[in-house]
Amino acid sequence: MTRDKADLDEEEALAIPKSPQPAAVVEDLEDLALGDDYALNPAYVDMVIDAADRGDSDRLRELVGALRSEDVADLMGFLTADYREEVIPCLDSETLAEVLSELEDNLREEVLDTVTPTALARALEELDSDDAADVVDDLDDDKRALVLAAMDETDRAAIESSLSYEDETAGRLMQREVLAAPQFWTVGQTIDHVRTAGDELPDLFFDIYIVDPAYRPVGAAPVSLLLRSRREVTLAEIMEPVTEVTVDMDQEEVAYIFDKYHLISAPVIDAGGRLVGQITVDDIVSVIQDESEEDILALAGVSDAGRDAGVWDVAGSRLPWLVVNTLTAAAAASVIGVFQAEIAKLVTLAILMPVVASLGGNAGTQTLAVAVRALASRELNASNAARIILREMVVGLVNGGVLATIMAVATYVFFRDPLLCLTIGLALVINLFVASLAGILVPLALDHLERDPAVSSSVFVTFVTDFTGFLSFLGLAALILL
Amino acid sequence: MTRDKADLDEEEALAIPKSPQPAAVVEDLEDLALGDDYALNPAYVDMVIDAADRGDSDRLRELVGALRSEDVADLMGFLTADYREEVIPCLDSETLAEVLSELEDNLREEVLDTVTPTALARALEELDSDDAADVVDDLDDDKRALVLAAMDETDRAAIESSLSYEDETAGRLMQREVLAAPQFWTVGQTIDHVRTAGDELPDLFFDIYIVDPAYRPVGAAPVSLLLRSRREVTLAEIMEPVTEVTVDMDQEEVAYIFDKYHLISAPVIDAGGRLVGQITVDDIVSVIQDESEEDILALAGVSDAGRDAGVWDVAGSRLPWLVVNTLTAAAAASVIGVFQAEIAKLVTLAILMPVVASLGGNAGTQTLAVAVRALASRELNASNAARIILREMVVGLVNGGVLATIMAVATYVFFRDPLLCLTIGLALVINLFVASLAGILVPLALDHLERDPAVSSSVFVTFVTDFTGFLSFLGLAALILL
Repeated sequence: MTRDKADLDEEEALAIPKSPQPAAVVEDLEDLALGDDYALNPAYVDMVIDAADRGDSDRLRELVGALRSEDVADLMGFLTADYREEVIPCLDSETLAEVLSELEDNLREEVLDTVTPTALARALEELDSDDAADVVDDLDDDKRALVLAAMDETDRAAIESSLSYEDETAGRLMQREVLAAPQFWTVGQTIDHVRTAGDELPDLFFDIYIVDPAYRPVGAAPVSLLLRSRREVTLAEIMEPVTEVTVDMDQEEVAYIFDKYHLISAPVIDAGGRLVGQITVDDIVSVIQDESEEDILALAGVSDAGRDAGVWDVAGSRLPWLVVNTLTAAAAASVIGVFQAEIAKLVTLAILMPVVASLGGNAGTQTLAVAVRALASRELNASNAARIILREMVVGLVNGGVLATIMAVATYVFFRDPLLCLTIGLALVINLFVASLAGILVPLALDHLERDPAVSSSVFVTFVTDFTGFLSFLGLAALILL
Repeated sequence: MTRDKADLDEEEALAIPKSPQPAAVVEDLEDLALGDDYALNPAYVDMVIDAADRGDSDRLRELVGALRSEDVADLMGFLTADYREEVIPCLDSETLAEVLSELEDNLREEVLDTVTPTALARALEELDSDDAADVVDDLDDDKRALVLAAMDETDRAAIESSLSYEDETAGRLMQREVLAAPQFWTVGQTIDHVRTAGDELPDLFFDIYIVDPAYRPVGAAPVSLLLRSRREVTLAEIMEPVTEVTVDMDQEEVAYIFDKYHLISAPVIDAGGRLVGQITVDDIVSVIQDESEEDILALAGVSDAGRDAGVWDVAGSRLPWLVVNTLTAAAAASVIGVFQAEIAKLVTLAILMPVVASLGGNAGTQTLAVAVRALASRELNASNAARIILREMVVGLVNGGVLATIMAVATYVFFRDPLLCLTIGLALVINLFVASLAGILVPLALDHLERDPAVSSSVFVTFVTDFTGFLSFLGLAALILL
């Protein structure tokens, strides 16, 4: 936790340092901890490691104490498991809770193993219900029962309700605490209610939801609008249309809606249209980061093993697609086997064929990346699919023509064989055309089948371009040259 | 713009439709326009096209009028230029302004060409200064001068000030309007100020910044905290530490800070530490989307040609890397040329060599994607680089070993040559080891040189794995088999 600037100013003004270290030293540690870009300094991580090595727990406590909980979570990621174990006892209950909610799954599980159920119950009570549920979800069944049993009844009910929704849905992202009021309330009444309501309200809120007697949202107003309106105005007069999210909506769709309409918060409704919670944009920022990360990794054929995963986990996260790729690469290479006689007659073919396959693979990957992104941002759908497919086909022919010219010239320079130039040129035009087509059709087909177009597209496209590259080049060579 | 639910309810209650169409029809159009996931329905786009084809401008106006401005912008992306020209006259000044600020650059430029400077000046006055500056930035110099001259002086000054900051910096993202107050103000005083201040305040605000007499931020408080505190409490008592952003900070760093600390808004300070504006999280959501999109496209070696770019623009956005790839693929293939004699003796080599190269390329891409992502999220830096590099080397050997075993067995089944199995096995271990190493070292080196690690990494890694794949397999074949 950062120390409050206000407290510091007070201490400095009095010029009587109350803590063992003068305020100035604490301030220095904060400066040392983060770069100008607010990223944790590698030198600071070294200082933590050094203190732990020397067994200097006072220094360790001081170093960790100068960090905000988000930076402590960051620090954990840069330390090895042994050092993490030294850092955990330095955290107070609230910081521990916040750090737990920031940590990645694999680190979180490790940390959770070292904390007692009672300490964990106390820590989780400090969090909003959505963050607490997230942490509880990572506990094994036995420990989960112990932790929930040790918790306050209201908090336990909130967590259990949150866990009853499926992972990666709006129900899991939402917090149950909301600020809602009927249409006929005045601004003044509402503000007075907020001042006295206390714990029922969320820690932070950005919009007030206006509900009908059945607790269905009929409008919303930003808190800043509430603040600038006169006390006697009714909520019905200032409310704006509301964009609702249903409790079973996939988090990716929720993120799309927040992004599209620039929402700061949105009410979550159940199947009956009743308000059951709210989602705030800070949770959506994480969802967007996670989803785009997933797309990048899926296109590269790798799953996320986690920040501090061991060798076996990392190897395991990459092997499945490599094995699939072994099969497709072998299948594509089997085409070469058909043309062994031709290659034996003209070994030059073996030199040039990988170039045809490789350029096709690259062109296919380009189209694929653009298509996956356009599908994710809902910019590609039935309205424009035909137009985009046609455009890709023309682009494939254009770029195929350009690369064919370049390679034909290069081939002439090296091999002085006009028919070989013609062969590689034609093969490139064919392969780039097929690459463009596969690059757009494969993700469209997966999307149509309601599969994630980022996953498994690239191995399939690469197979098509390898296969077509070898077949077109060696086949044309057999026809034209031999 | 969506019609206010409150208005609709009133109309329905009175049962006297005031507009030519009964309220129920308008409601139907809204339902028709968007799917459950709030994405624009392809069928609705067809209805718009149909109305435009029939020259039915009343129907067109009705269809477009039922949409929110974000959905109108979305609609534009699905239409061709001719249809867009029909839609633009259907938009009122405020909607036009909002649509302009939502549109992608290439569509925006096209639309801007069709609007007169005076109409544009009126429209821009409806926007926050950051959004207006964004639109003005896309005008050519002559039109920009005309538009600015036609604008209100305050708005013009705000836009000119915004444009004085470099593109993709905090200065360009921020809006100048902020809510700031001194420490000694009470909550009551602050709320009264907000009620009377009017236009100086931003349309929406989420935090109040507490400033010292030199207008430097010393703390911040969420508006919801202001609302729940008693009127007589001073701001100094409720304020929390503030996370500032400097005016020249890159937008990617700003996004990192918002994501890390879950910020809703942040004060922007100039070189002297004075408050000059604020950035809100809705702008950051777009930045995060844009930056991750850039990474996906850069890794695939393609730049964004824009949503409705023509064939030539799209082809041009992909050709540069394809040409570079032609050179690297040819360079890697030249290794094969060295081993022509060996291939002529044993054509099987030509069949198997692309498999070795391809698997290396895939493994390298996997490591690269993980590394680029880790660098972007600041999870990989000097603190853990050595550990991660070591881990990648071991992973390369492990996965190389697994694939070597698979391919050795497959090779034995097809070719019954134990030495050929040994050759391809060894070559795969070597190539996957090199692939892992290149996949981590290339992005780290680019990052160290302060270049974007996503750009140009993959072409380089693929070259390394192609080269190593051919060299190790054919070289070992020459040593072991021939």
